[in-house]
Amino acid sequence: MPQYTAPLRDMNFVLHELLQVERQYRELPAFAETDRDIMDSILDLAVRFSENELAPLNRSGDEEGCVFRNGEVTTPKGFKEAYAKYVEMELGALSEPVEYGGHGLPHSLAVVRSEMVWSANRSWGMFPCVSHGVIRILVTHGSQDQAHVYVPKLVSGEWTASMCLTESHAGSDLGLIRSRAEANADGSYSITGNKIFISSGEHDYGGNIIHLVLARLPDAPKGSKGISMFVVPKFLLDVGGGMGERNTVSCGSIEHKMGLKGSATCVMNFDAAKGFLIGEPNKGLGYMFILMNSARLGTALQGVAGMESSYQGALSYAKDRLAMRSASGVKVPEREADPIIVHPAVRSMLLTQKAFAEGGRALVYWLASLEDIVEASADVEQRKAADSLMGLMTPIAKAFLTEMGLEVANHGIQVYGGHGFVREWGMEQILRDARVATLYEGTTQIQALDLLGRKVLGNQGADLKHFTGTVLQFCNAHADDAAMQEFVTPLVELVTEWDRLTQSIGARATGDPDEIGAAAVDYLYFAGYVTLAWFWAKMAKAAQEKLVAGTMEPGFYQAKIQTAQFYFQKILPRTKTHSAVIDSGAVVLMQIGNI
Amino acid sequence: MPQYTAPLRDMNFVLHELLQVERQYRELPAFAETDRDIMDSILDLAVRFSENELAPLNRSGDEEGCVFRNGEVTTPKGFKEAYAKYVEMELGALSEPVEYGGHGLPHSLAVVRSEMVWSANRSWGMFPCVSHGVIRILVTHGSQDQAHVYVPKLVSGEWTASMCLTESHAGSDLGLIRSRAEANADGSYSITGNKIFISSGEHDYGGNIIHLVLARLPDAPKGSKGISMFVVPKFLLDVGGGMGERNTVSCGSIEHKMGLKGSATCVMNFDAAKGFLIGEPNKGLGYMFILMNSARLGTALQGVAGMESSYQGALSYAKDRLAMRSASGVKVPEREADPIIVHPAVRSMLLTQKAFAEGGRALVYWLASLEDIVEASADVEQRKAADSLMGLMTPIAKAFLTEMGLEVANHGIQVYGGHGFVREWGMEQILRDARVATLYEGTTQIQALDLLGRKVLGNQGADLKHFTGTVLQFCNAHADDAAMQEFVTPLVELVTEWDRLTQSIGARATGDPDEIGAAAVDYLYFAGYVTLAWFWAKMAKAAQEKLVAGTMEPGFYQAKIQTAQFYFQKILPRTKTHSAVIDSGAVVLMQIGNI
Repeated sequence: MPQYTAPLRDMNFVLHELLQVERQYRELPAFAETDRDIMDSILDLAVRFSENELAPLNRSGDEEGCVFRNGEVTTPKGFKEAYAKYVEMELGALSEPVEYGGHGLPHSLAVVRSEMVWSANRSWGMFPCVSHGVIRILVTHGSQDQAHVYVPKLVSGEWTASMCLTESHAGSDLGLIRSRAEANADGSYSITGNKIFISSGEHDYGGNIIHLVLARLPDAPKGSKGISMFVVPKFLLDVGGGMGERNTVSCGSIEHKMGLKGSATCVMNFDAAKGFLIGEPNKGLGYMFILMNSARLGTALQGVAGMESSYQGALSYAKDRLAMRSASGVKVPEREADPIIVHPAVRSMLLTQKAFAEGGRALVYWLASLEDIVEASADVEQRKAADSLMGLMTPIAKAFLTEMGLEVANHGIQVYGGHGFVREWGMEQILRDARVATLYEGTTQIQALDLLGRKVLGNQGADLKHFTGTVLQFCNAHADDAAMQEFVTPLVELVTEWDRLTQSIGARATGDPDEIGAAAVDYLYFAGYVTLAWFWAKMAKAAQEKLVAGTMEPGFYQAKIQTAQFYFQKILPRTKTHSAVIDSGAVVLMQIGNI
Repeated sequence: MPQYTAPLRDMNFVLHELLQVERQYRELPAFAETDRDIMDSILDLAVRFSENELAPLNRSGDEEGCVFRNGEVTTPKGFKEAYAKYVEMELGALSEPVEYGGHGLPHSLAVVRSEMVWSANRSWGMFPCVSHGVIRILVTHGSQDQAHVYVPKLVSGEWTASMCLTESHAGSDLGLIRSRAEANADGSYSITGNKIFISSGEHDYGGNIIHLVLARLPDAPKGSKGISMFVVPKFLLDVGGGMGERNTVSCGSIEHKMGLKGSATCVMNFDAAKGFLIGEPNKGLGYMFILMNSARLGTALQGVAGMESSYQGALSYAKDRLAMRSASGVKVPEREADPIIVHPAVRSMLLTQKAFAEGGRALVYWLASLEDIVEASADVEQRKAADSLMGLMTPIAKAFLTEMGLEVANHGIQVYGGHGFVREWGMEQILRDARVATLYEGTTQIQALDLLGRKVLGNQGADLKHFTGTVLQFCNAHADDAAMQEFVTPLVELVTEWDRLTQSIGARATGDPDEIGAAAVDYLYFAGYVTLAWFWAKMAKAAQEKLVAGTMEPGFYQAKIQTAQFYFQKILPRTKTHSAVIDSGAVVLMQIGNI
């Protein structure tokens, strides 16, 4: 099975050569001290943890899975110890607020750690990953007291968190949830209801579990405007803030899933459990979106992480496995056949994997660098612009990179031939683990509606124009650069086409609101392909500059340029299909009565 | 979990309204007596068997899997009894030769039974499915004696078969196999070697297992020209032709796989096992292709069968599950939300499933009807033409329908949202079971090389011209039919484009042989989309005729036309991408040194 090796060189290329984060850090007072040495030493920790502690538990975790018995969840062997090490190494606290014990480091550094975790062991990564969003909600909307008692222990990792949103009949449409909250005399609430699909709702890591729960107050308006958010700890706090009495929240069972078997996906039963209102009544869905946006970026990153794992596995196999001779003449005469990497169809799959993994990494790290600005810039306008851009890009990154994650994992299996279907090789697990990513935290279809309906048409394309303006600015800046023509010429065309599509859908939607839903998924794919094209053009430019300046790593930079060329020639033509499908409109989808 | 219901109405539409098989049967003496009554009664048996015996074992078979212990394989509970019933109902003998106890019925009837079996329980379907190809090899190339002793019991189903080709280092490239055969004094051979991925190599159904094994004679030429085929029974035959002494072939282990867990995928060890040469020495690979072509059509059918299962599951859920309101106004005011089938993005997934399942069915049944001609036509020219057409279409059907099978199964999961990832709903099993189909019996990449390299460029496009000529003939015949314009106009364009692509690749390949491998997969997809478009145009025409003539089922026929429109507007634009990718050539795939 593939042995995960953190692609540190590629990660540093994005951080330092593409995004030049150090320069950005220097402009953001909170991060000004984060220099290359600090970054390198933290990433070194993350490399060691992910490669040595997590990766070895990936297959065994899948085989063992989590086990539920009498309300308790036993995680796979070694998961608990790995979590203790993670806490001890303070790897969860990297980008958490200093005032609560975190290290206050940039998100664009923490994201690299997270990628390594997700690549090495996607199931395990589910346990610590919820805390970040929960911390942000508690800090932003919780009372001072709530922030004070829960956040430090979530930051340290002593306690973990869960988000309890979904009910069996209410997933994409949270307006339908039925869990209810009744006020107690002491200012607390009694929460009653059943939640499903609660990742890490129960486990055996010890410590308290802090559940954020959506429920309705008795007098709440119907639908999504009547949902409030409560914090419901597994153990109520004693006077010293430690774990006191057991609350009446319990795990009823865990799901048996296609993948992510080492992650506990719990049915959680709240039986008049004691909870505490966060912020104002009926505003829970709004608060939830803070967490949701963070979860969506995390899911986009999972997409990239899975691509990297699959690519590593496929690449090493393709160099090793022998079958047939190269069509252009024997390449390795001393062996009985050539390694399959000589065959164009195999190379096409590997390059597709590489192009998505590296392009997706650039997109997600860039979004994390925008998060740095949103959090730490002194300039209100800059913060606002970065926030809008993140809002626009989040559904694209989430849906596009998780869907491409499935494609890439499929290629990884395909490169192995029949061996790809066999569990011991580990390639099929990558696909099984990846499959959920287009479903949870809002399906691809929900992301597409969010993008086209809310983020684009909802503000008359203002945020989109800002983004495409940035892309065009890049194209104009390199309009006279001969080596960049093969990238900027198609990019300009595609941005123009993007604009045409937006206007065309907008016009049709005034007559038929179903036109938005009919176009949304293809529109999101179109946007995803063009966005990644921009990143590949930028990476090609960065690589060209290094080659011109002279470098000890010509092969590395040449490969970046050639992967960009591959992306533009072999992947980007997919936009043609999406354009044509969008233009064909809603009629053919809606007319059929007898599906 | 979805309850499989055989789509008999759709199946009969293809058989009787699209292909008009009864008319064809009347022209083929061997099948002249197969009338509608016989067909209906046999399909009725198959419906009852698949729905009542197989479907209920589908989930449990996946959960239990096959178990290996001390050389023996235990199949999931109920599999053995279902097999006994299948034998008793003589469902395996439908299209087998009368002279060996079969019913001699048309393949285009047997294929419908097979679709039902594959849809109801794909793992179980693996056990009986090898016999058909093995019977054909034994009848065609075995000695009279071999045919006489093995075939009747394979036809009845008393004995089963396996094909032992792959070795751990030799899959796509069978020229590398190392198993060896040494002549014994009695005319038999001693076969020694290890084979992997042997479906049904061992099981607990009782009866003999007849292995066809590829191995090398001591003086054999190197590579694929030195491979001979042997029949190696698990039990040597006694003088009466019954099961005698145990042969020295044994199952060493079974694979733990992503899916098809109810099917035993065996490592088979041949330890000087007694075998008997089939036909002439060193011609084994050629014989194997008889079996392989039958296996490839069977795999194409598995693709269709999985699509149907996934579509049925997704459709029923989409009608039932409530989330949000239709953008064009509330559709079901009495419920708290509308069923998700009102949303265009959900309809798009369902229609994609429907278009591929029904279009794929038409393609595979048509290929089975060509097989009828190859087997039973008195006209040599007609036989030859049908055989060539099958040769051209087999790689397209196999690769395209199994790849689309993955897409369709993915949509089925996606329609269920998070529930799609949970095992009890059964949707994820469909994808896991389907995943192997693009790998075994020749990967998609191998099919693509077979299509473009051998079947198209290998004979200067003669067979392709014959096929596209047939398509153009259809288009010309309906050139003045206003209702057919939306289908025939794009079809004519695409056939022209197909021709252009073929010539363009052919021209480039003279300079660089890697151009074939670089283009092959996209070329196969292009071919698949256009081929299915032709079937959808033909189905639309058949439906239009019924509507014009007057029918009690206007909704059924209207839906066929609207699905054809969906296919042309929403699926067929994918050809644009494949054209562009093909035109971009091999350079960008081959130049990169540092993948």
